[in-house]
Amino acid sequence: MITVLRLDHRLGRDTRITTHVCLTSRAFGADKVILSGERDKHIIESVESVVDNWGGDFQVEYSKNYMSVIREHKRNGFEIIHLTMYGKHVEDVVPRIRDNSRDKLIIVGGSRVPTEVYEEADWNLSVTNQPHSEVAALAICLHYMMDAKELDITYDDCKMRVIPNNEFKEVIKK
Amino acid sequence: MITVLRLDHRLGRDTRITTHVCLTSRAFGADKVILSGERDKHIIESVESVVDNWGGDFQVEYSKNYMSVIREHKRNGFEIIHLTMYGKHVEDVVPRIRDNSRDKLIIVGGSRVPTEVYEEADWNLSVTNQPHSEVAALAICLHYMMDAKELDITYDDCKMRVIPNNEFKEVIKK
Repeated sequence: MITVLRLDHRLGRDTRITTHVCLTSRAFGADKVILSGERDKHIIESVESVVDNWGGDFQVEYSKNYMSVIREHKRNGFEIIHLTMYGKHVEDVVPRIRDNSRDKLIIVGGSRVPTEVYEEADWNLSVTNQPHSEVAALAICLHYMMDAKELDITYDDCKMRVIPNNEFKEVIKK
Repeated sequence: MITVLRLDHRLGRDTRITTHVCLTSRAFGADKVILSGERDKHIIESVESVVDNWGGDFQVEYSKNYMSVIREHKRNGFEIIHLTMYGKHVEDVVPRIRDNSRDKLIIVGGSRVPTEVYEEADWNLSVTNQPHSEVAALAICLHYMMDAKELDITYDDCKMRVIPNNEFKEVIKK
């Protein structure tokens, strides 16, 4: 079980980035995303619509208080992984995380993440130590955690499916 | 030489995604980004500020007409790679692209990419065939093209540098 927790969503300003966080979580093999901050039903509906069309059972939930989400997952045995540009390199520690069979909670910031999150996390991990994007960091982290197997996921219950093609768009609608 | 071309930027709506495209390009080893669509000097200034603080010689340029950028790069021998969820899987073809020593132009869409772009591209490539994020797709594509070496890039001319740490933030200012 891999759950992604998006800290501190703000309506308007964060809409597209948070949507990309949700869809990247799904496409790269996470099971669920939990959004915190300001409730945004449009994001939840748009992610549910993607799941409905493209398949799978990815879930999207909302929880106002992210610290209680973190503590609850910790109590339930989840390994807590906080993505931050200040952390240790994900590629250096991933074998210890990937192969221990524990459930994972991956935390994706927020512009200002409080010290409490760093302290509650088992791992504070970076993808490069350069400033870039929580979407890119999440994609690379999940890519390592899934050992690249996410690239071959297919969904039997999809209504639409792409036939990969070098020349043009080809989509099958069931 | 790896250049990223961002199609069809729209002021306001695309600001944060396009900024993430620029910073992801830099952090994952591209040399330059060219923005097309509506001119947005705030993005250009914010990317230049990141380069100034964190180092390297990443460049950001603006060009109104993206088709002329594509054709000019093609004439100059660049291999043209268009990232799209409808394309062939990047991980399947990357050895042929990575090891041929040609310069690359990586094209990142836009919501509606015209057929012309598909036709001019040498490669229409996907990262999964699921809907997710151009930022995630770009990160994974560059990660494969750089053969993961981007994760170890350091910049001698930086004013700030992170010391990777599992416990807290540690930044050296020169």
